[in-house]
Amino acid sequence: MTASFYPPERTLMGPGPSDLNPRVLAALSRPTIGHLDPEFIRMMDEVKSLLQYAFQSKNAVTFPVSAPGSAGMECCFVNLVEPGDKVIVCQNGVFGGRMKENVERCGGTAIMVLDEWGAPVDPGKAEDALKANPDAKILAFVQAETSTGAESDVKTLVELAHRYDCLTIVDAVTALGGTPVKVDEWGVDAIYSGTQKCLSAPPGIAPVSFGDRAVDAIKARKTKVQSWFLDLQLVLSYWGGEGKRAYHHTAPINQLYALHEALVILQEEGLEAAWARHALNHQALRAGFEAMGLSFVVAEPYRLPQLNAVSVPEGVDEAKVRSAMLCEYSLEIGAGLGTMAGKIWRIGLMGHASNQRNVLLCLGAMDAVLGSMGAPIERGVAVAAANAVYAA
Amino acid sequence: MTASFYPPERTLMGPGPSDLNPRVLAALSRPTIGHLDPEFIRMMDEVKSLLQYAFQSKNAVTFPVSAPGSAGMECCFVNLVEPGDKVIVCQNGVFGGRMKENVERCGGTAIMVLDEWGAPVDPGKAEDALKANPDAKILAFVQAETSTGAESDVKTLVELAHRYDCLTIVDAVTALGGTPVKVDEWGVDAIYSGTQKCLSAPPGIAPVSFGDRAVDAIKARKTKVQSWFLDLQLVLSYWGGEGKRAYHHTAPINQLYALHEALVILQEEGLEAAWARHALNHQALRAGFEAMGLSFVVAEPYRLPQLNAVSVPEGVDEAKVRSAMLCEYSLEIGAGLGTMAGKIWRIGLMGHASNQRNVLLCLGAMDAVLGSMGAPIERGVAVAAANAVYAA
Repeated sequence: MTASFYPPERTLMGPGPSDLNPRVLAALSRPTIGHLDPEFIRMMDEVKSLLQYAFQSKNAVTFPVSAPGSAGMECCFVNLVEPGDKVIVCQNGVFGGRMKENVERCGGTAIMVLDEWGAPVDPGKAEDALKANPDAKILAFVQAETSTGAESDVKTLVELAHRYDCLTIVDAVTALGGTPVKVDEWGVDAIYSGTQKCLSAPPGIAPVSFGDRAVDAIKARKTKVQSWFLDLQLVLSYWGGEGKRAYHHTAPINQLYALHEALVILQEEGLEAAWARHALNHQALRAGFEAMGLSFVVAEPYRLPQLNAVSVPEGVDEAKVRSAMLCEYSLEIGAGLGTMAGKIWRIGLMGHASNQRNVLLCLGAMDAVLGSMGAPIERGVAVAAANAVYAA
Repeated sequence: MTASFYPPERTLMGPGPSDLNPRVLAALSRPTIGHLDPEFIRMMDEVKSLLQYAFQSKNAVTFPVSAPGSAGMECCFVNLVEPGDKVIVCQNGVFGGRMKENVERCGGTAIMVLDEWGAPVDPGKAEDALKANPDAKILAFVQAETSTGAESDVKTLVELAHRYDCLTIVDAVTALGGTPVKVDEWGVDAIYSGTQKCLSAPPGIAPVSFGDRAVDAIKARKTKVQSWFLDLQLVLSYWGGEGKRAYHHTAPINQLYALHEALVILQEEGLEAAWARHALNHQALRAGFEAMGLSFVVAEPYRLPQLNAVSVPEGVDEAKVRSAMLCEYSLEIGAGLGTMAGKIWRIGLMGHASNQRNVLLCLGAMDAVLGSMGAPIERGVAVAAANAVYAA
């Protein structure tokens, strides 16, 4: 017989999921109601409004896809890309590569613009690709590369794309809630995110938002969307909000309770305050790491406050460090992905987990673990350096 | 400012979601851990074993898709259907129609075998189609049609399909946990289900199982699976269980805690006992409805105990009845779908919600609501008729 599962109590400072506010966990376990219940439909409308606030958008087509962030990405691509379409994909980490996969599986052609991992997308190279491909339909890129911690300049890239008559698809999985995402001000056409990063809701839901130009492009499609589950025209008859809902699929009721509560908390704090909190805790963590002698992968102007990629000091077995952090401190930090595997740690300060307590715990634990392994670091200085930032 | 959402306390006797055991709600709200945490990976392995038990299968490829039942359906079709493939789809309700959509969106051709809504799939007609289409690759059908409450004979249909060298895709969304599903004994090749019916876990996850013949067919594909998110070869590097997991997407951690607990509860009760409980409560509900003078849509041998489709008496406004049940008794029952809209109610007795208390509540409330509307029913006899079944 299998016994009930009781998870250990962790502090989650990896690249997501992040720690949930106890209010969000409590919301998760409220009694399930029907997905066509008038009370549930009222809550769906509130989730949509709250997501519009999070995305800073008035887009009517703003809702949570009932599946993880990678399905949110797929939702954008399968609805906007038709066979034969040309899509310029800027890749500066793992997730740009996934975009390429999506384009190709939709029967489109991906024109790749490659930047170094850890660097932001270079708008100059993007413009060269736009110039060289006047028939391109879409420019796609990642705002906050979860694999490296680099932020790209959405505003500039969207302006460029529009100048060359392209739509834009933006990955904001790690960005949303932790760093400014201004869909309307920047003119983003289609954007997707995840719940388990800076929104600190449980993983499994993907907020998306589509602007008018994207919706027009979808309405003008010549072919059916290849995914029934992600076909926006069908999904919107369920999430559309114009009176009667048509049954499409059964929404993940309890997950949406949790997302609702996480967004209520974000609204209570205010987006600007949340961004400032992420920035402050990043500065404190950074001061600690730099005092210790660790260096950041990403150049300063492009560093994401919510995802800190730090180089592993020479001679240190990075997996052993992560394992010691988990076993001895019940603290999760992330490994490198793809070409960065083994070379970096990814330390998240996302959403509810972006707080002073976690910064001090992480620095104290790293000091002890790296020290005990004889790593070439300055010991006993990190926590004081972080505290100095908070005291300033 | 938007306030926190507190759902009303309902009794869920519609076509799903069903009421959750408080143990499952409690599991949902346990602290989130990382999806690559060794403890989480251990739990994933347990979920796979527990699903093998639920499906009565030793299939190694048995796992929960991180999205609702309709994505489970799509997972089966996108992995098994390639452009140009011919698929025989037996339709006797809404969900067979959705299968057709799936086949066509994969670039396949759907040969439709139509049966009356409320009737089971006719094996004779299925065999005619198999004979007439020797190049067909797959026979697809629904075991338990959620839109009508009719059960089809999986064993016979799978035997037929194999005789004509076809694979089978079976929809067991409403079947699993409520009525026998014997994947290995029946030789089913690919099957999907949902969590929010007779497993009584929250909606949003789709258990699937693929047999060796299906896995071989997937390995022999000439084209890439059109969905990155649902590509089995990628998903299995995450759920595969052979040592190291490759990152694919972030699993819906807390939802999986809940599914794990629901499956532990099923294992504690035992599948046979769960099937017997569903049968008994159905008999009691049926005795009550028949005493009242209501009639079932589906002929007796094909009735699903977990989904009772009852005809709306002439002159009765069915929506008004559902609304009164919800407002006055906080009891949800379901409406008809598609061609059955307005003509039937669908009353679920699924999983944790299949119990004596719910049967009596439903009969008592229907007696009062229909009576107050002057519907042509026999009043004051339903509850006694149900009690007689329990006493026997």
